[in-house]
Amino acid sequence: MAALTGADRILAETLPAIAREVDAMFDALLPAEGKLAKAMRHAAIGGGKRLRPLLLTATATMHGADRTNALRAAIAIEAIHAYSLVHDDLPCMDDDAMRHGKPSTHTAFGYAEAVLAGDALQSFAFEVLADPATSGDPFVRAELVLVLASAAGAQGMVGGQMLDIDGEGQALDLPAVTRMQQLKTGALLSAAVEMGAVLGKLPPEGRMHLRGYARDIGLAFQIADDLLDHAGDEAKAGKALRKDAAAGKQTFVGLLGEGRAREQARMLVDQALAYLNSYGQEADLLRAVARYIVERDR
Amino acid sequence: MAALTGADRILAETLPAIAREVDAMFDALLPAEGKLAKAMRHAAIGGGKRLRPLLLTATATMHGADRTNALRAAIAIEAIHAYSLVHDDLPCMDDDAMRHGKPSTHTAFGYAEAVLAGDALQSFAFEVLADPATSGDPFVRAELVLVLASAAGAQGMVGGQMLDIDGEGQALDLPAVTRMQQLKTGALLSAAVEMGAVLGKLPPEGRMHLRGYARDIGLAFQIADDLLDHAGDEAKAGKALRKDAAAGKQTFVGLLGEGRAREQARMLVDQALAYLNSYGQEADLLRAVARYIVERDR
Repeated sequence: MAALTGADRILAETLPAIAREVDAMFDALLPAEGKLAKAMRHAAIGGGKRLRPLLLTATATMHGADRTNALRAAIAIEAIHAYSLVHDDLPCMDDDAMRHGKPSTHTAFGYAEAVLAGDALQSFAFEVLADPATSGDPFVRAELVLVLASAAGAQGMVGGQMLDIDGEGQALDLPAVTRMQQLKTGALLSAAVEMGAVLGKLPPEGRMHLRGYARDIGLAFQIADDLLDHAGDEAKAGKALRKDAAAGKQTFVGLLGEGRAREQARMLVDQALAYLNSYGQEADLLRAVARYIVERDR
Repeated sequence: MAALTGADRILAETLPAIAREVDAMFDALLPAEGKLAKAMRHAAIGGGKRLRPLLLTATATMHGADRTNALRAAIAIEAIHAYSLVHDDLPCMDDDAMRHGKPSTHTAFGYAEAVLAGDALQSFAFEVLADPATSGDPFVRAELVLVLASAAGAQGMVGGQMLDIDGEGQALDLPAVTRMQQLKTGALLSAAVEMGAVLGKLPPEGRMHLRGYARDIGLAFQIADDLLDHAGDEAKAGKALRKDAAAGKQTFVGLLGEGRAREQARMLVDQALAYLNSYGQEADLLRAVARYIVERDR
């Protein structure tokens, strides 16, 4: 585990760096003129941990992919994440006025405008991926679209959001909450790693360990999120906390208690790290991400 | 113009046939289990003229593409159209309780559920296109995604919807309304023709006439829509009419008057037909579609 000290240092530099790169790429590629463009930029630029871009670029770089290609794919997945937050924050969904420490998109631009900005961000994601500038290899472009669309849709993120809405006020058990979170958050985190592997032209049979890693950090991430929601600081989070309990949503902390939830997250991280045993130093960034996920304070 | 009589006959058979094929393909490919799947199916199956699928498959078949491939691409574009109607009907947008003669998606399933069903339909569209079953050629798959994503997004359909919202109560002039409608409706109709050409492996330089045809029928379609909204039958339309005037939206009929609007639509159809002069009988279906667009009663 000695390598992790070095990796933590790498991460301390890498997280702000990737955030800057993501913002610059969004700025270069998002439409610039008009109200819709403004709302899309408000939603996409200048906020968030950029965890999905980090996972994607780290996995891609690890397998020799071009960095600019990886960054384009990274903003595609981040556009999907950003659109999902815009729609999640709507009055008819979670009704959140703040996001990333600033007004949520519907607060700043209006309800209909936020629906449309989210819709346009989703189209933008696939437009970026299918563009020859993302990869000269059309097979890679088509596969990136397939992985992201399938993770974003009814059998992924949006499917999880629907289970989340449906579950409000119901006594969901641990397997049901796990399933919901694996779709709602896990699918997109897994897609980030998978898209990195696609860019690195790793064949599907070579992606098994990476998939295991992604699945475990995805779940650890959600448990850590529940812990932060339970005990965290609203100013650091940049959004309202403890809304799940108020909405009657079942969480890992609610089901396991704080101590066992914390233990479970740590165990998942250890398991994720074990999946990376066949890699050397080139996977140190992915190792650092796994630790960061449970140690972060926002 | 004698060939059109035969083409009208073809269209009388073709419109119900394509509607059946589209419903069957949606039924085969949309997720089946759970509330989200039900809402997606409600929005996508059993309604609409299926004009975009007709344009896409007609253009694809004309250039020798495989019919099953074309039908898969056709339901992808129809999924985008269907999602846009789901979101358009939301209380924060046009607030329409009825669509295709049945309750709109949010009326039947709830507000948040309709937002999510629309979102998932958009992901579904790109997932279908990027799937190797849509074309064995990854270049074709990636290009289909690029054409559709660009037509659906901020510089296409959603961009037009935002201009539409922004224009409510404003004195838009003819160029402004034309621009808005070319984005809101025209971009997707053009994409239908373009995607057919992509499947038929027509090189971009060979698509000029088809693009002209698509642009002209797109505008004619919207003028005809305004005429139907102005004078049409709510029972046949299966939705509330004359809402544009009530919302203070500027329409072609409002700007030109009924007589000149009708004349303009006919002129655009003639122009569209002229673009097809280099084609023989194989383009009769596209010719029939152009006429149908201004003669339809719903």
